[in-house]
Amino acid sequence: MSGNGFGELFRLTSWGESHGPAIGCVVDGVPPGLTLSEADIQPWMDRRRPGQSRYTTQRREPDEVRILSGVFEGRTTGTPVSLLIENQDQRSKDYSEIAQKFRPGHADYAYWSKYGLRDPRGGGRSSARETAVRVAGGAVARRVLADLAGPGLRIRGALVQMGPYRLDRDRWDWNEVDRNPFFCPDAAAAEGWASALEAARKDGSSLGAVIEVVAEGVPAGLGEPVYDRLDADLAKAMMSINAVKGVEVGAGFAAAALSGEANADEMRAGNEGRPRFLSNQAGGILGGISTGQDVVVRFAVKPTSSILAPRRTLDRFGRETEISTKGRHDPCVGIRAVPVGEAMMALVLADHLLRQRAQVGAWGNRLWDPLPPPAES
Amino acid sequence: MSGNGFGELFRLTSWGESHGPAIGCVVDGVPPGLTLSEADIQPWMDRRRPGQSRYTTQRREPDEVRILSGVFEGRTTGTPVSLLIENQDQRSKDYSEIAQKFRPGHADYAYWSKYGLRDPRGGGRSSARETAVRVAGGAVARRVLADLAGPGLRIRGALVQMGPYRLDRDRWDWNEVDRNPFFCPDAAAAEGWASALEAARKDGSSLGAVIEVVAEGVPAGLGEPVYDRLDADLAKAMMSINAVKGVEVGAGFAAAALSGEANADEMRAGNEGRPRFLSNQAGGILGGISTGQDVVVRFAVKPTSSILAPRRTLDRFGRETEISTKGRHDPCVGIRAVPVGEAMMALVLADHLLRQRAQVGAWGNRLWDPLPPPAES
Amino acid sequence: MSGNGFGELFRLTSWGESHGPAIGCVVDGVPPGLTLSEADIQPWMDRRRPGQSRYTTQRREPDEVRILSGVFEGRTTGTPVSLLIENQDQRSKDYSEIAQKFRPGHADYAYWSKYGLRDPRGGGRSSARETAVRVAGGAVARRVLADLAGPGLRIRGALVQMGPYRLDRDRWDWNEVDRNPFFCPDAAAAEGWASALEAARKDGSSLGAVIEVVAEGVPAGLGEPVYDRLDADLAKAMMSINAVKGVEVGAGFAAAALSGEANADEMRAGNEGRPRFLSNQAGGILGGISTGQDVVVRFAVKPTSSILAPRRTLDRFGRETEISTKGRHDPCVGIRAVPVGEAMMALVLADHLLRQRAQVGAWGNRLWDPLPPPAES
Amino acid sequence: MSGNGFGELFRLTSWGESHGPAIGCVVDGVPPGLTLSEADIQPWMDRRRPGQSRYTTQRREPDEVRILSGVFEGRTTGTPVSLLIENQDQRSKDYSEIAQKFRPGHADYAYWSKYGLRDPRGGGRSSARETAVRVAGGAVARRVLADLAGPGLRIRGALVQMGPYRLDRDRWDWNEVDRNPFFCPDAAAAEGWASALEAARKDGSSLGAVIEVVAEGVPAGLGEPVYDRLDADLAKAMMSINAVKGVEVGAGFAAAALSGEANADEMRAGNEGRPRFLSNQAGGILGGISTGQDVVVRFAVKPTSSILAPRRTLDRFGRETEISTKGRHDPCVGIRAVPVGEAMMALVLADHLLRQRAQVGAWGNRLWDPLPPPAES
Repeated sequence: MSGNGFGELFRLTSWGESHGPAIGCVVDGVPPGLTLSEADIQPWMDRRRPGQSRYTTQRREPDEVRILSGVFEGRTTGTPVSLLIENQDQRSKDYSEIAQKFRPGHADYAYWSKYGLRDPRGGGRSSARETAVRVAGGAVARRVLADLAGPGLRIRGALVQMGPYRLDRDRWDWNEVDRNPFFCPDAAAAEGWASALEAARKDGSSLGAVIEVVAEGVPAGLGEPVYDRLDADLAKAMMSINAVKGVEVGAGFAAAALSGEANADEMRAGNEGRPRFLSNQAGGILGGISTGQDVVVRFAVKPTSSILAPRRTLDRFGRETEISTKGRHDPCVGIRAVPVGEAMMALVLADHLLRQRAQVGAWGNRLWDPLPPPAES
Repeated sequence: MSGNGFGELFRLTSWGESHGPAIGCVVDGVPPGLTLSEADIQPWMDRRRPGQSRYTTQRREPDEVRILSGVFEGRTTGTPVSLLIENQDQRSKDYSEIAQKFRPGHADYAYWSKYGLRDPRGGGRSSARETAVRVAGGAVARRVLADLAGPGLRIRGALVQMGPYRLDRDRWDWNEVDRNPFFCPDAAAAEGWASALEAARKDGSSLGAVIEVVAEGVPAGLGEPVYDRLDADLAKAMMSINAVKGVEVGAGFAAAALSGEANADEMRAGNEGRPRFLSNQAGGILGGISTGQDVVVRFAVKPTSSILAPRRTLDRFGRETEISTKGRHDPCVGIRAVPVGEAMMALVLADHLLRQRAQVGAWGNRLWDPLPPPAES
Repeated sequence: MSGNGFGELFRLTSWGESHGPAIGCVVDGVPPGLTLSEADIQPWMDRRRPGQSRYTTQRREPDEVRILSGVFEGRTTGTPVSLLIENQDQRSKDYSEIAQKFRPGHADYAYWSKYGLRDPRGGGRSSARETAVRVAGGAVARRVLADLAGPGLRIRGALVQMGPYRLDRDRWDWNEVDRNPFFCPDAAAAEGWASALEAARKDGSSLGAVIEVVAEGVPAGLGEPVYDRLDADLAKAMMSINAVKGVEVGAGFAAAALSGEANADEMRAGNEGRPRFLSNQAGGILGGISTGQDVVVRFAVKPTSSILAPRRTLDRFGRETEISTKGRHDPCVGIRAVPVGEAMMALVLADHLLRQRAQVGAWGNRLWDPLPPPAES
Repeated sequence: MSGNGFGELFRLTSWGESHGPAIGCVVDGVPPGLTLSEADIQPWMDRRRPGQSRYTTQRREPDEVRILSGVFEGRTTGTPVSLLIENQDQRSKDYSEIAQKFRPGHADYAYWSKYGLRDPRGGGRSSARETAVRVAGGAVARRVLADLAGPGLRIRGALVQMGPYRLDRDRWDWNEVDRNPFFCPDAAAAEGWASALEAARKDGSSLGAVIEVVAEGVPAGLGEPVYDRLDADLAKAMMSINAVKGVEVGAGFAAAALSGEANADEMRAGNEGRPRFLSNQAGGILGGISTGQDVVVRFAVKPTSSILAPRRTLDRFGRETEISTKGRHDPCVGIRAVPVGEAMMALVLADHLLRQRAQVGAWGNRLWDPLPPPAES
């Protein structure tokens, strides 16, 4: 109830502070019999890991995940999977200034108002370091998805806008995503972004970003109508990532400006009785339930709030002052949000697959079965 | 778990289909001793009620709410409040066509894929009629907010875009909202929207919209860090409304294009030790927790999918066909989403007020207390 | 969170007061495609209905259940099933005395302490009338059990002790249960109970009881280890029934006095690879998980607290006084607890069947599959 | 949903296997600002720790708890408290026999039926070792109780029956509990139990037990009516402890044999307007809500299933065989269930204190306020 758990049937309970001894999570609801080892998790951790390019924080964390429970002889047992990541690079820094002042754009004042005290070391619980456990939990979710929905279910994310600069969708190439430090599928855009980010850093400033996450091969029928819609749960999932200010599905905000005709994705007969949609304004979700089309979600990340440029603020005594945040920070925190967004997508889909299996008993490659044609009369 | 409940401590459980005998909800977690009667609920129902202008469906529903439990001698008892709304205008229509064909943009195919059967009468459970119970539950939530947070907490919504046409924020006047059929705070924009909507209707088309909901007087400290952030729960709440495709908080998607300096809302000393923020890019929420600034949420509604213009689709037998939706439909379903968005804001805030009271024991006009200035040294 | 919901995946949300206009519940999580009508529910209501013998309250309630949602053309749609039961015999009684005094053994003082006010009419929410909705919800659960686990799963309850008088287990005959007004499987015992109860009533007193509920044909593997054990959830379910003071499974409290050898149910090879247990001290549950043996639960009901014999108490002003409860009351409230206990068993089993299906994907007639014998070496 | 969490607002999520690298839990919902360190937890761990007398298992575990998060400078921050206990004495034992055979009375067959595989090392997740984390979590709950309800709230447990031997309640002396290895408040009974237990061990047998847990100073008003009654949640809590087969509150099963007059606890005026009850058949709970009297719960523990005496069983291949369990086992597992029962009481009360504070806003030393006497007329 204090908000550190995510998911209903496939449930991640997260704990840990940026500069505590460790962070981690408990993943409950994992089906038994799945192969699982640290090797299934580490590659995803490495994608999010800090210190890999000059565009991300220089904090050095190996982010090695240990599985402490729930696996026996290489297979999940159906009991909770406890994951632990030690914090190693807790640089012995003087936190006295940020312990005294509220950093604008940060959660400092909000935590203080809520709890009456806070752990100021590296942002404590509000640090983006918490997202490491989402990626770890998401890796477990991917094992569930692979088992229940098959290899056709694939989740991929990309940066589609950095600061004010959008990519060109005509140049989209998924293969480019791993070739530049921005997870950008447009090689030309990535070059421009490098310059822009370098400039922002030199100015002691920072940039925002927009991320797109696409899930292919999602079976139709996932999502609960009314409140726990698939899109509603995805909106919550993405908005819960640090610094996110907006989420949209399919055409998103642009849908408001479409005509009814342009918005309604028409259907034709496709393979194996599966409908073929002529467009995907819906982003793969209608009435809160997946349709079998690609599930497409985008979210906006605000520019990093830790900037060198001095900002006006108050201290704990209510006195007016200024603060300038030095130290190791991502100039565009949106970059490393890409693997986090993918992980949240995996967590939501795994949860809804189990929910669908619970109530309806079907899952995976479930298709709509066209009825046999009625007899001629 | 099947998604018909909303909220954790202040919890609404919704039921009912568009053309069943009634719809309703159970509101659990209502604090005892609040005054509550149908008269507290009905005005909000009337704002959302269909058939009030030519711009909304001509279905005639009085939407009279009955309180069946949880109130004794005019006061809540702390036990569940059951609310019931009878469906009256279930026009004896022939549903054979939409029972056979999947309407593009509607939930027909998704429900069929999920459940293997569906109630086609008026959309069944996927109908926007369900939103009536949200408004009823939201009215109860407003009673909680008034009692716990005082009269300073005020929730208001407005339409800020219809189709491609935005209002002019310089002309924003909350008093205008009740003077036009669009909940539009810009009288001049409302006139243009009337023409646009009339044109869309004549063309058998429909328009989308963007709604903004603002909550003033929200105490600082509401929202749980990490997953159940206040903004994450608001994102889920709004995205769960029928036809919504995007949600944003504060600067929202535009935040991605801001510089770090422009995005970080600076603070100066205000009244009673409360900080005065120099801007509100954050939309009143930092780190998932309210700051005491106005909470500002916007969401995008797609154009109504029920349109006269014929669209290509499949029938239940997998055969290609067309469908044209006649009948009584809102040409812009976004208009009536305004009171629904307000209700969802009220539900989320009431829930988080109780959550804050549970864990921290404080609520209402909680302020950050500046520490006494340190002694001179 | 205010405790009016029961179950996780198959979830009943209950509402209503004894003398309000109606009581009811919302049943969420019902699998789609099940046949369901009022006729499936009414027979179970009739078993619990008051006014059927001189041993139960003379309040006259037809207890007719209406299904308001979730069913289309005779089949469940997967959406919430709303059930409503009107209160008809709310005798226009003067409640001023019990509104002023705390009845010993009743919830009056406890509600007052909790909420600061209460609905005194007929006990309000604390009335055993609420158990009618459990029976209604239990009837829906039975439809789920029949569909998922097959006709072999049968739930039956019996009164095994009234006041200090136990039945003779050697005379147990399930057919007798419906032939006497006590749900007693021992015809001879029933005769003695009739006299005892008549005597208690004449004395203005009341009797307690012990109920046993047996579920045959429960598949092995239901129940979650650690906290949501099948027996733990059954203990909660039964203890939540009005006036229950104790719950036990299998040998129950008597197990404490057994030797380790006598307690451990030995196993031999049975039919189809299914083990044959040589005893059932465990009551069909080991480690919180069903074993395929009969699930056996017993619970103790205290004597009715509404008695004619005057008892010392306080009034709302803290003044010492006495109270004697006149009116229509069951002299042994345990009798009508039999169908309620059966309903709670059905609710718990339906919930755990769906939970098992969610995580493990198996259900129903699941058997342990003996491995093929190892090859000779 | 897989049952490894306990509590709603004060929530413990448990993980770990008997012979994995560690066990632990995440405690969420802890109010901020409480002093908390390992020193608050360790004494309770030491009470439950194995290897302390010849009457408990000789497994040597220091059971040192580490706090990994949620505490800053000695105070809770309101964020999750992660507790970790390393497993040290995982004796390198040959588990091949119990991996192949189902031990009667153990969860082996049930786990196999549920999951299709299991971790046989020391019972894996079904081991009583899991109860160590309950005691750790219970220690955190005690800090909450001390802060919210004050020092008057005291939880104590005792063994009241070993095998068939009950203590003499007239000799009850709480001071004796820590003077014998059985947590027995009757010194004379303890001597007899020592002999009985020694005899059972020599015979390769084991004994059951009954434990009583008493909570004094519980404020009136805790517990949610209908399903989440305080007694229902306590019943679930105690029944969820390994090997428990029955739970009762107050008079418990004996209540069934009482007359209505004897059962109804009469009230007289006491101190400060607080009623004085003349008896406590109710065990401090009426209508599921605490009355301010002592909360009294008893539970029965079956004899240890790991016994030397050979028992008939099956192996994984369905072949009939026998098993005799050697190794380090408690001859009466009920002894160490005493601190576990106390911990479960603490967890339930802390949860319900927060729930009461959420909905009603009152807590702690809340008293019923007698109304001022009415004016003379």
